[in-house]
Amino acid sequence: MTSQLLQKFIVKEHIKNALKEDIGYGDITTDFLIDEDETLTAKLNTRQDGILCGIDIVEEVFKTLSKDVRIEKYFKDGDEIKKGDTLAVIHGNARAILTGERTALNYIQRLSAIATETKKYQDAIGSSKARITDTRKTTPNFRMFEKYAVLTGGARLHRFNLSDCIMLKDNHIQFAGSITNAINKIRQQLSHTHKIEVECDTIEQVKEAISVKADIIMLDNMDCETMKKCVELIDNKAIIEASGNVTLETIGEIAKTGVDVISSSAIAAKAKTLDIGLDM
Amino acid sequence: MTSQLLQKFIVKEHIKNALKEDIGYGDITTDFLIDEDETLTAKLNTRQDGILCGIDIVEEVFKTLSKDVRIEKYFKDGDEIKKGDTLAVIHGNARAILTGERTALNYIQRLSAIATETKKYQDAIGSSKARITDTRKTTPNFRMFEKYAVLTGGARLHRFNLSDCIMLKDNHIQFAGSITNAINKIRQQLSHTHKIEVECDTIEQVKEAISVKADIIMLDNMDCETMKKCVELIDNKAIIEASGNVTLETIGEIAKTGVDVISSSAIAAKAKTLDIGLDM
Amino acid sequence: MTSQLLQKFIVKEHIKNALKEDIGYGDITTDFLIDEDETLTAKLNTRQDGILCGIDIVEEVFKTLSKDVRIEKYFKDGDEIKKGDTLAVIHGNARAILTGERTALNYIQRLSAIATETKKYQDAIGSSKARITDTRKTTPNFRMFEKYAVLTGGARLHRFNLSDCIMLKDNHIQFAGSITNAINKIRQQLSHTHKIEVECDTIEQVKEAISVKADIIMLDNMDCETMKKCVELIDNKAIIEASGNVTLETIGEIAKTGVDVISSSAIAAKAKTLDIGLDM
Amino acid sequence: MTSQLLQKFIVKEHIKNALKEDIGYGDITTDFLIDEDETLTAKLNTRQDGILCGIDIVEEVFKTLSKDVRIEKYFKDGDEIKKGDTLAVIHGNARAILTGERTALNYIQRLSAIATETKKYQDAIGSSKARITDTRKTTPNFRMFEKYAVLTGGARLHRFNLSDCIMLKDNHIQFAGSITNAINKIRQQLSHTHKIEVECDTIEQVKEAISVKADIIMLDNMDCETMKKCVELIDNKAIIEASGNVTLETIGEIAKTGVDVISSSAIAAKAKTLDIGLDM
Amino acid sequence: MTSQLLQKFIVKEHIKNALKEDIGYGDITTDFLIDEDETLTAKLNTRQDGILCGIDIVEEVFKTLSKDVRIEKYFKDGDEIKKGDTLAVIHGNARAILTGERTALNYIQRLSAIATETKKYQDAIGSSKARITDTRKTTPNFRMFEKYAVLTGGARLHRFNLSDCIMLKDNHIQFAGSITNAINKIRQQLSHTHKIEVECDTIEQVKEAISVKADIIMLDNMDCETMKKCVELIDNKAIIEASGNVTLETIGEIAKTGVDVISSSAIAAKAKTLDIGLDM
Amino acid sequence: MTSQLLQKFIVKEHIKNALKEDIGYGDITTDFLIDEDETLTAKLNTRQDGILCGIDIVEEVFKTLSKDVRIEKYFKDGDEIKKGDTLAVIHGNARAILTGERTALNYIQRLSAIATETKKYQDAIGSSKARITDTRKTTPNFRMFEKYAVLTGGARLHRFNLSDCIMLKDNHIQFAGSITNAINKIRQQLSHTHKIEVECDTIEQVKEAISVKADIIMLDNMDCETMKKCVELIDNKAIIEASGNVTLETIGEIAKTGVDVISSSAIAAKAKTLDIGLDM
Repeated sequence: MTSQLLQKFIVKEHIKNALKEDIGYGDITTDFLIDEDETLTAKLNTRQDGILCGIDIVEEVFKTLSKDVRIEKYFKDGDEIKKGDTLAVIHGNARAILTGERTALNYIQRLSAIATETKKYQDAIGSSKARITDTRKTTPNFRMFEKYAVLTGGARLHRFNLSDCIMLKDNHIQFAGSITNAINKIRQQLSHTHKIEVECDTIEQVKEAISVKADIIMLDNMDCETMKKCVELIDNKAIIEASGNVTLETIGEIAKTGVDVISSSAIAAKAKTLDIGLDM
Repeated sequence: MTSQLLQKFIVKEHIKNALKEDIGYGDITTDFLIDEDETLTAKLNTRQDGILCGIDIVEEVFKTLSKDVRIEKYFKDGDEIKKGDTLAVIHGNARAILTGERTALNYIQRLSAIATETKKYQDAIGSSKARITDTRKTTPNFRMFEKYAVLTGGARLHRFNLSDCIMLKDNHIQFAGSITNAINKIRQQLSHTHKIEVECDTIEQVKEAISVKADIIMLDNMDCETMKKCVELIDNKAIIEASGNVTLETIGEIAKTGVDVISSSAIAAKAKTLDIGLDM
Repeated sequence: MTSQLLQKFIVKEHIKNALKEDIGYGDITTDFLIDEDETLTAKLNTRQDGILCGIDIVEEVFKTLSKDVRIEKYFKDGDEIKKGDTLAVIHGNARAILTGERTALNYIQRLSAIATETKKYQDAIGSSKARITDTRKTTPNFRMFEKYAVLTGGARLHRFNLSDCIMLKDNHIQFAGSITNAINKIRQQLSHTHKIEVECDTIEQVKEAISVKADIIMLDNMDCETMKKCVELIDNKAIIEASGNVTLETIGEIAKTGVDVISSSAIAAKAKTLDIGLDM
Repeated sequence: MTSQLLQKFIVKEHIKNALKEDIGYGDITTDFLIDEDETLTAKLNTRQDGILCGIDIVEEVFKTLSKDVRIEKYFKDGDEIKKGDTLAVIHGNARAILTGERTALNYIQRLSAIATETKKYQDAIGSSKARITDTRKTTPNFRMFEKYAVLTGGARLHRFNLSDCIMLKDNHIQFAGSITNAINKIRQQLSHTHKIEVECDTIEQVKEAISVKADIIMLDNMDCETMKKCVELIDNKAIIEASGNVTLETIGEIAKTGVDVISSSAIAAKAKTLDIGLDM
Repeated sequence: MTSQLLQKFIVKEHIKNALKEDIGYGDITTDFLIDEDETLTAKLNTRQDGILCGIDIVEEVFKTLSKDVRIEKYFKDGDEIKKGDTLAVIHGNARAILTGERTALNYIQRLSAIATETKKYQDAIGSSKARITDTRKTTPNFRMFEKYAVLTGGARLHRFNLSDCIMLKDNHIQFAGSITNAINKIRQQLSHTHKIEVECDTIEQVKEAISVKADIIMLDNMDCETMKKCVELIDNKAIIEASGNVTLETIGEIAKTGVDVISSSAIAAKAKTLDIGLDM
Repeated sequence: MTSQLLQKFIVKEHIKNALKEDIGYGDITTDFLIDEDETLTAKLNTRQDGILCGIDIVEEVFKTLSKDVRIEKYFKDGDEIKKGDTLAVIHGNARAILTGERTALNYIQRLSAIATETKKYQDAIGSSKARITDTRKTTPNFRMFEKYAVLTGGARLHRFNLSDCIMLKDNHIQFAGSITNAINKIRQQLSHTHKIEVECDTIEQVKEAISVKADIIMLDNMDCETMKKCVELIDNKAIIEASGNVTLETIGEIAKTGVDVISSSAIAAKAKTLDIGLDM
């Protein structure tokens, strides 16, 4: 359905479960009141500015409930939308539209909020080369959608899950004794298609990570001065990720240190909802 | 597992899916580095004040990964927690603890944030009789957990889903011609165990709702003056729900109008995450 | 698909599982004997009088097996059907029709029997205002269908499940000490959208239930004389449900006591099958 | 769990779904009223005579809800039980027992009724060698349980599903032109582990079925006189199944014709519920 | 979809899971590179001779990913194909074709290899009446497909699973004391639609199996001389299955002993992959 | 359960489905013959040399069927086993052991064969630094297990699925116009945690891949002479993967060209089964 990363046949299952969650044993208000062959026209309007995300999911929600729903879309995911814009016109089976409304909005409001928030972070980086990236701090069983929204908003994605990339954290390093030991042990089995990222708190750790040829070095919770030094030290021998204390206020300065990516859970976990509604 | 509304055998399925989402084909960092029989002790600490929610889910996450994990809990859901508090000590299989960490935190951070936010709204009501209540504006396929968090935070729950209670909105009323017509049509089939709620924008609608004996009357987006008038009009003949423009700043004043419940999507949809972490 | 309560996308899953149950590894008789492109015309005939229920499910069963099946329906759910009536003509892929026959009939025979039985009970009430209602005594994992059939037959539905309405029974009351204690405890947390029903065995209990403003009072296993007294006592302050010893013979008299609803598991649990068959 | 045909790990899934169906978002009466650590003792008593079936399922229902439930069983599936017998004593977590009660009873009441009905048919056969057998006319997605109950009641099982045995019916024969053609075509592909059954309406068809060495010949809707002739004709060259017009009144006479099995959907599809209840 | 044994609605689920397995969070190469509306034409060519199996599954794989894929098929399952043959032309959405390629080929390559191998064994039997048959030694959760391929290649199927036919092996016999005891015990409960097969290692066992009227006698790991003696002994009183040491070299000789079926796991478990590919 | 990559709670689901596939409606031979409380001791013996893989899965299969099965393991996955070795002794519930036998063996026989085959390829590489690696040519819905077996046999894993690593093939390159265009387009969106691999057929393509800094260069179907030249050209600026015409005979020579990994579908797709059996 949607343009990237979300396969329609997988999204459809998520939508079916969400509809079951919201419908329970039946939308008794609609079912007892409105006849099966009534029709309705509704406009999907935004009441806030932002980046649209989830328009195809809205379509799929209504089509799951009835084949007799048509949707004319005026914007596509990733587009900037302005308060008052009509995003789409939905026409067809009245029961399907009334029953699906809340579920459809629950997807598009949240995804658009995430895309919008992500865009703000990327914009705040300004002309620096750095790119905002997300984290694994997502809503359980909703990651696929949050990742998609983050990508739609202009971020690069961090690893999808634990099988995607090696990420050495404090605890892993303690078990191995040192970064060097850890990487050497892992390299004996690691797929040649996977990268190794090392989380570093200190310049000493950064030096060790360079010496064992980590692919990505994460500078964790460092001040900008220290990060600048690390960027010089690393000198393009690894990709540099900045993490910690990333806000709309700080991200511009962080970007200027020369890091490649800046990761933040805020773009997904702290985004609210974008006020998009159906007007009949 | 958890005290109310969440049956352990149902929660377990959600957790399994969330773990699959986060693990993918395997936690390669942990699996390649740490032997199967290594053990670990970790403390679950909070770095923010709030209301705890999800402690039993954390336990279940780790137990899903290994039987050899023990968790000693010092707080239970609904407890106030203070920055620096150790909520639980987790001991056992190192792989399970490292692999499950992010998923466990994703549940508890979000649920505790919702419970904490809910508590603030309820507290802001002060000594009025009104109770804060949630809405159906939830994350798709995560409602059960958000409802549980809202309840833990001191709210009353609104209807779970569309089969739970009749809720007549604008669009339904337009199809029927009037509130009276709508309710008469519905009453021919409605279960005697279900209530009828009517969304009213005007005093005229409130009067009509009273005359057809609606069980619950929702005052939608009214100013406090108008709400006061409605409360007098209704005069305990129906439960009164206030909706719209509910913020921490306005809720106290709304409560003083004499309404019974005040519904707000903000407590679930706009809560962020509470900073709870694992320290090894 | 079907007119009320049964969402097509949910029904489809139940049908797929039922077909898997009946097909196993393949309908070897049909597959080995009949070529893939053979066609067939079959009539769905009833050999008994009754109320039709499940005609759209029959259609869905065949369409799940092959897109090349067309069904012309002459009756719809809720219609009275007479022995000898042709309910529908099914035409198309022969394999699909032969393979799906038993599963399709298993649905429609049982649902029509329930609708037919329900209608008899409602008819036996005569001119009294009372309505027959069902119970939670249903076949495991088939409730949705039995509820639908009961509704089709003219009953009002009782609560769908345990989350739908408070129902205080003997055991609950014993734990709380009294009806009053129980209701007070529950009201502290109960959603304003939910009703409270109390099961009463004695007039004393009925008085207590009235005094704590129960929404529904169930008169359990009382004789008609006692029920009449209770109806007077309650005096429209609660909905009254009669339960126990409900048969086609007794229901008319029970209805005359002035109760609002009469619940009986018999309409679903004791209905047999209506003799509907496919004639090729 | 149960002794035959029902694998515990498969039954457990069915039970979980049935509990979800009955619990919805939570047993609000029990959850809001009874504390998590309360306990309860309940007796499972029968109020009717019959054949017990489903006692292990009852146990599994409660154990799915809580590990803290113990059940002492005094009878096992297949045992004759008498009105007033205590079948089991259940002790443990009060919430689990109250929440699971209806689901547990829904299984055992229906299964015991089927076993009891089956036993009556088998008993009515008297000293004849014939055995009662079931059909595929079962409740969708509940067949496994109904088959188990029928077996528990003393029947032999007919084929489980369409992949189990060839069964040539009218429609199949019409497609092939004749019984002989049909069997010849099927034998080219049929597994050597499968039998062939032919449904015969006339003595001519029986003769043809014998001549092509059908394994089983079904005498469909024949009177006893005709059946006797067929039994003589077949003369042990095939197993003989009688079908049609099988009632408790007719089955004895049918059995005396010398047929081997008598199939009837009534034992499963028309059994009601056996009155078994929980007394706290 | 496919001609026999594989119901389209069941196959579709298997395909969806296989696609999820291969796609993970998205085909990032294709998604990031190729626009949503690009199209592509690809030929499905074989680079080896063999028996085609799985062409309809290939179609279903692509259609699961996009409705905008059309496939023109030049061969059907069971056809002989020669190196260089174009089996089908696939045209449509480029992303769907590129993303689905590997999964589609994984089905058709393996199934065609099994069908091809099976055909070789059947051909090696020559003019003897014997038929090759498969076993339950299949890839977990892939049996349905392997059975289908084996059937496509010209084999008869052995039992599908453990509920399909009685098969007495050594261990069963030891528990019962003797073949006779075992069969007598089983016959008390066995469905009249099921056959009994006995695995025999010695002529003594064969004699006992004959005397208790086993339907099928398996000669396990016997030399051809012994098998011939057994065939004479059995003298058409049971179906005879040869098992053990079945290779392309030995099968002809085994067939000449007069056995009815020759079972071999090799046709499914040891087949490799047939080299079929997509050329764009 | 198993040491790496296979999470026990995920494996358990696969096993349950495999058991359902093999059990159908019940293991009628075992259920009708052997009492519920009979016990059995069985030895898991190997009749071939090889590398063991799947011993913990065997344990899980039996435990899924009954808690009353104990298994003493003498070898662990990855160990060399010799014809005649007893791998484990299984003791407990006779029904569970007899019913689970085939499914347990289906896993261990196939996985051990893959591990064994993989080991042969790695051994054939000799003292060269190269490592054998697998492909995505796996049995649908069985990849997780085949990957695990390949890893157990000493291979490095290639990417798990399409979301794991960019892999530019012919078709992708044609859409983009050139390798350079393709990589530039992808890099705009690609996660910093993902690598880029380019499939090259010619030295010209290798040069282009080097110039755009591909992380991995696959030399596809080149002769050893050409590969040597490419290794020199690449000069450690990318990881080098050899692909095509990899057999036990050729792999040693390929390894000597200096490539880093050699990928082959043969280790998984063409492995047969290792003869491991249960002796009671």
